[in-house]
This record gives sequence, structure tokens and C-alpha cells, in this order.
Amino acid sequence: MTDELSERTFAAVCDMADEAAYAQRTLARASTDLKNDLLLDVAGALEAGAAGIEAANAVDMSEAAAAGMSEGLLDRLRFDAARIHATADGVRNVVSLPDPVGEMVRGRNLPNGMRLNQVRVPIGVVGMIYEARPNVTVDVAALCLKSGNAALLRGGHAARRTNEATLSVIAQVLADHGFASSLVASVDAYGREGATALMQARGHVDLLVPRGGAGLIRAVVDNARVPVIETGAGNCHIYVDASGDLAKALPIVINAKTQRVGVCNAAEKLLVHRAVAEDFLPVVANELSRHGVTIHADDASLAIITAAGIDDLKIVPAEDRDWDTEYLDYEIGIRVVDDLDAAIEHINAHSTGHTEAIVSEDYSAIEEFTQRIDSAVVMVNASTRFTDGGMFGLGAELGISTQKMHARGPMGLEELTTTKWIGYGTGQVRP
Amino acid sequence: MTDELSERTFAAVCDMADEAAYAQRTLARASTDLKNDLLLDVAGALEAGAAGIEAANAVDMSEAAAAGMSEGLLDRLRFDAARIHATADGVRNVVSLPDPVGEMVRGRNLPNGMRLNQVRVPIGVVGMIYEARPNVTVDVAALCLKSGNAALLRGGHAARRTNEATLSVIAQVLADHGFASSLVASVDAYGREGATALMQARGHVDLLVPRGGAGLIRAVVDNARVPVIETGAGNCHIYVDASGDLAKALPIVINAKTQRVGVCNAAEKLLVHRAVAEDFLPVVANELSRHGVTIHADDASLAIITAAGIDDLKIVPAEDRDWDTEYLDYEIGIRVVDDLDAAIEHINAHSTGHTEAIVSEDYSAIEEFTQRIDSAVVMVNASTRFTDGGMFGLGAELGISTQKMHARGPMGLEELTTTKWIGYGTGQVRP
Repeated sequence: MTDELSERTFAAVCDMADEAAYAQRTLARASTDLKNDLLLDVAGALEAGAAGIEAANAVDMSEAAAAGMSEGLLDRLRFDAARIHATADGVRNVVSLPDPVGEMVRGRNLPNGMRLNQVRVPIGVVGMIYEARPNVTVDVAALCLKSGNAALLRGGHAARRTNEATLSVIAQVLADHGFASSLVASVDAYGREGATALMQARGHVDLLVPRGGAGLIRAVVDNARVPVIETGAGNCHIYVDASGDLAKALPIVINAKTQRVGVCNAAEKLLVHRAVAEDFLPVVANELSRHGVTIHADDASLAIITAAGIDDLKIVPAEDRDWDTEYLDYEIGIRVVDDLDAAIEHINAHSTGHTEAIVSEDYSAIEEFTQRIDSAVVMVNASTRFTDGGMFGLGAELGISTQKMHARGPMGLEELTTTKWIGYGTGQVRP
Repeated sequence: MTDELSERTFAAVCDMADEAAYAQRTLARASTDLKNDLLLDVAGALEAGAAGIEAANAVDMSEAAAAGMSEGLLDRLRFDAARIHATADGVRNVVSLPDPVGEMVRGRNLPNGMRLNQVRVPIGVVGMIYEARPNVTVDVAALCLKSGNAALLRGGHAARRTNEATLSVIAQVLADHGFASSLVASVDAYGREGATALMQARGHVDLLVPRGGAGLIRAVVDNARVPVIETGAGNCHIYVDASGDLAKALPIVINAKTQRVGVCNAAEKLLVHRAVAEDFLPVVANELSRHGVTIHADDASLAIITAAGIDDLKIVPAEDRDWDTEYLDYEIGIRVVDDLDAAIEHINAHSTGHTEAIVSEDYSAIEEFTQRIDSAVVMVNASTRFTDGGMFGLGAELGISTQKMHARGPMGLEELTTTKWIGYGTGQVRP
């Protein structure tokens, strides 16, 4: 990807980032009231301008349909009046969230009489590369503005007219409030080169968040010189322990697998303790089949499930690569494990570090599982689908971080800040 | 640098990291008492083995001297009995620090009845690339072990025998406590390739911290696929405001510039408000001269200082590149500024984001400066030299982060952790 980057595009994107940084220095000091007023006006203007945005989206949609885009992706690209209104309500929700800027993280008096404060401040210029989902444009803009950051966006070629129309509405509101429109800008005009330039613009872009499929995230990690937070890869596991309450396990597995299949917190794998495999697998396989889920089964689970004689069962033997695959579809991998240790080792070897769940009534097994699993979120007797900024009470989220630096799990407003130490002295020098 | 990396070395370093990760999973669950006992034994063993380490160091020292290493670097390389004892005391100091692992960062009950905790956990495998300073080997090992992390070190060719002797002492203590020696290991046997492998080992090394000169840090940032925290570049500024108490300003400037010149929190630039330039510059220039400091002066300060007729004055006109230079020596850049705005803009344009200080008695000027300066630490009426984990009450430090992701400013034990969310449910599924 980097080979395609011309010096001219790189310089242009760095200039955009520098303009954004300049404007951000004013936003960084804006009061919460002022930022909330701005966001309420963004919400209102999106609704008032919905017809224009929808018209631009219609052109994007018909071009994408003509180019053979799949139904699922077309649905993701759609930004009609109903969705625009829902997105505007999302902006109003961001208004209702506490402002993290200025929060004192630590504060103490030093022995030498100095007063030392560590306070939250905005990060600066946040780059975001995502696939053609027009609502993300608004979500990211709202989260960045509320937390005092500028946003530099690469929103996907297929949604370029929709994003342009949306950003022009936001730009007008920024101008009305005396802010530069460079605070929320798009590099889409530079095509893929724009994305590459964002990755390379170290010293201009403070943080880059890719949000999308594994291929996108891999490309960003491989090419970025800017600090990156990886998001969204979710090969999530549910482990049903020997002590597990199967009456809880069944709805948890069905919910985590089928409530929505194309999302990163959907369950992709089910591990079942040998002691309950005979009891649980026929029941869960029957229910999965009724929901149209294809099962990729290891030898032990294949034997048990096949013997149950379930109608319309879709089952195939699991291959090695299944254990590392995020299906994002009506498919699940199932494996019988000998004990808790085997479950933990399987998960730590194959998980993407997003969310894993245990169904168990055994205190010690739960402690072992929650302590030893190395993922952003561990659920006990609950669906993996709860890993979500809204569900966690963080409000909206920029994405779900699956790495360990800076932010882990759902990224809300607080994760869009860094800190600054301020030492107040009276002439102290170091002895 | 990357071109030099052979597949064989890369595979070997990845294997070392994976062994470290395996051992780290046990350490991650060790109690604070157990980790403290381990560290006390490390301190004792270093003192008991001081003669052997000192002997290895003597060989490193004579080889380095023969190769023409400068006095300053030779001093940094020296690890004699006195320094080994001081370093062992540093390990005991780490024992006395609170253990960050397990601290609950946030905790709440969700509306659906789930209990949600966010707790601190170790990061995993921490890579460190540093220049030939043997005490860093021990400091990093102690901080990583206390925070439940494994350490994979590249400690500089010149110190390789010293580091080998030190690590073998630590390995024995680890073994005595039933831990694998892979918990604290060195890639020095692979030379520069070992460093490159550390940078490339994404998925094996969780975090890489380069500590050293600008060239080292640049090379790491350019080549790393592993998440990196930049440390230690310090083009630190002191701004003396129109309202500044010059009786405080003088000792602060002299302390920040001369108390120790080779460190990242030493002052490198002095900006003086035009209103106090005639009063302050001759006084500070005279004192700087007495300390042997060469002044790189802009036109305005050059005129004022030269007119003062100071004996033995070392002064040269500043060039453009001076404003971006970290001297790490008895040199300082001085510039007269028209107002607070000009000072803030100069600093935000040229600073490395480490530490800046203002000397002022004006409330509004101090508020402007502390809010608008975009650096890890801002000091008010105090020396830049206070930016230090020990001085901040964080205990020992791994380095001083000058970037905004994950950690900013001195990195102590807390900055060597990430978090994990644990949700405790009773069968909840997502509606």
C-alpha cells in the first residue's frame, strides 16, 4: 500500500492534519457547554439536511449496486432519513455524556512543597480509517468534538458522496460556532493514497484507529508509522464448564451466536467440558440448527451431535483453520475439551483477545478462567454480545480495542484523551 | 536496519518471546508477597555476586576504552561495587512500591443486573532497547517483575558481558523461586539483529520501549511493527514571563541547565519576555558563563548580553537548527519573545513534548501557559529537572514517555499494566 503514496498527496494530508491540529488547540480549551451546544446544532443540522444527505447516499447506493455490492454491504452503506435521525440522536447521547477533559487523574503534594496534578487533555488529531458506513462519520465526529479532538477521516470510496454531504453539514455548524471546518475533515479525495498518507503522517496525526475487517487492520498495522489502536477482530469463545448451568448456557450460546452475526462480539466458538458434552451438545446443536447455524465440529462433538439424529442439521468436520476463523456469519466451531485448563489454553492460543465467556457455577473454575484468559473482556454466565460501549455505560464508542496499549475493550470518550502533568511550585530547584 | 534481519534470528527471538510469555502467565498471578520476596532475593544476590559482575564490567570497560569510547559513555558503562549496591537498593525501593496488578480501575452494576469490573493486569512481554547502561538492566527487570511482566532486553554491545553476568544472577534467583529464567532474558547474543527482531515481533512482544538517543528512537519508530512508547527526547524550555520573579528565575534556569547536563529533563532553551530581557539576560548570562555554559543567542538577546561586558562569556549567534536541538551539554539557546503567545507558539513548534517551565507571578499567564503547552509536563516556577518518576512519587521509572498513547511523562509500575474487563452475570443475554 505504501508504494502508491506520492509526495504530493503525503504533503497535502500532512497539511490537512496540521490545520486540524491548529484548530484543535482552540477546541481543546472550549468549555463543555460550548462543545455541547455545538453538538446539539450538529444533530439538528443533520436532521434538517437529511434530504440532501439521503440524495447523495442514493447515488452512492445505486453506483455500488451496479458494481455488484452484496446485500449486506449495501445495507451497511444505506443512510436514509430514519438512520440519519437515529444517528442525530446518537449525537445527542454524546452531549449527555460527561466531558473527560480536565478530569484530575492523580494529584498530590510533593515533599518539596510542589503541588502536582495529572489531568486529562485531548489527544490532538485522531485519524480514522473505516469501511463504507456513513453513520460512523457522524459517530466519530461527535466523539472527537466532545473530547476536544480533531478528526481526520478516510471513510471508504463507496460512501464518498454520502460522507461529503454529511461533512459539509458539520462544516457549516462548525463555521457558525466560529471553528475551522478542518476540525472534522476527510482525506477521501485522495483515494487509497489518502489512507496511506494517514498511516505515515507521524508527528502530524497523533493516533490512528482502523475499524473494519482483518485485511484493513493488517494493512494499517504493517504500514503505519503513526501510533495505531487495533479494533474489532473478534474470534470470541464460550466455554461451558462441567459445573455449568445448562439452562443458562443454552440461551447464552444462542444469543451470542445468532442475535446478530456480523458483529465482532458475536460468539464464533463453543468449547464444552467432556463431562456435560453428552447432555448439552444435542440440545445446543438442535437449537443452533433451528437458527440456521452451520456447525464446524471436532471429532468428539461431531460424534455426539450426529448420534442425536437432529432434523435439518448442518454440520461439517472442523479443520485446523476453523479455530482461528472469525466467521461473522451463521457458523460456529464446536470442540469438546477435557478440562478447564484445556479450554483456557485453547482460547489463549486462538482468540483475538476480544471477549470470552464461561458458563459455570464453580467458584474456583470462574476465578481461574477470569484470571488466566488474556482478553479485553471476560464474561461470566452472560452473553459475549454485551461487550459494547453503550452496554458498559460508557455511552457511544469509537471501536473496541483488542490490543493492550492505551485502551482495551470499548473505547469511549475517556479513551480519546491523554494526560498532562502540571507542577505548581514556588521556585523549587532539584538538589 | 530491517534489511539485516535473518529469518533464523527472527524465529529465535520470537521463540524467546513466546517462552517469556508462557512464564509470564504464572508470574501474572503471583501474589505481591511472592513477587516482593523474589525481588529482595534479586537485590541480595546482586550484592553477593557484585565481584563477578564488576569483573565482567572491567572487561567491557577496557575493551570500550581501547575502542576509544568517550569519558562520558565510559562513566555510564561503569558498574562497580558501589553502583551495584545502589542498584540493589533501587530494587528494594521497587519492593516498597504498591503493586498495581489487581487494582480496580472502574466498577459498576449494569442496569441488567450484571456486575462489571475493570481491573489492572500485566501487559505481558515488554521489550526494551537501551544503550550500554548496566543499571538499566536491573531497573527494568525489577519494574517488570513487580508488575507481573516478562522483560526481553537489548542492552547494548558494549555492556554485553556486564549484562550477561547480571542476568545470570537474576536467572538463578528466578530458578530458586520456581520461575523460568526466560522471564528476564537478553537478545544481545543476536547483536543488532536482535534489536530489529524485537521491533518486528508483533504478536510475540506486547510493547517495546526504546531508551536512548534520538537516533535509536527514530530507528525504532521507523521499523517497529510492535507497539512502541517513545521516551526521553527532551528539548525542554523555560519561559520567563514579564511578571516573573527574577530571583526565582535565576536559580531555576541555572539548576535546570547545569545540575546535570546529559539528561532529558535538563533545560535546553530559555525564552525571555522582552519586558524583562534587559534586567534578566545579563544576570543569567553571567551565571551561565560561570558554569561554563555556551549561549546560542538570537539577535535581540545577543545584543543585550554582549553589551553587558561579561568576563569569559561564551556566546554565539543562534542558527535555525538550534531551536530544535537537544544539546545534552553545557549549551543553551536563548531567545527574546514579544509576549506569552510568542513563547507558547515557539515551544509548541520546537519542543519534543517532554517538559516546559514558566516563571511567572501572573495568574492568567500561568493558566494560558499550562493549558496551551502541549507537553507531558508543565512546571510553574520550578525546575524542569523535577520530571522524574522518583521526584513525582511514582518510585522508579522505566523511562519518560514523550508521546500521548498509553503513558505520558514518567512511566512507573502503573504504566506497565493494561486492563481487563470482567462481567459477572446470572445468565443475561442481549435483548
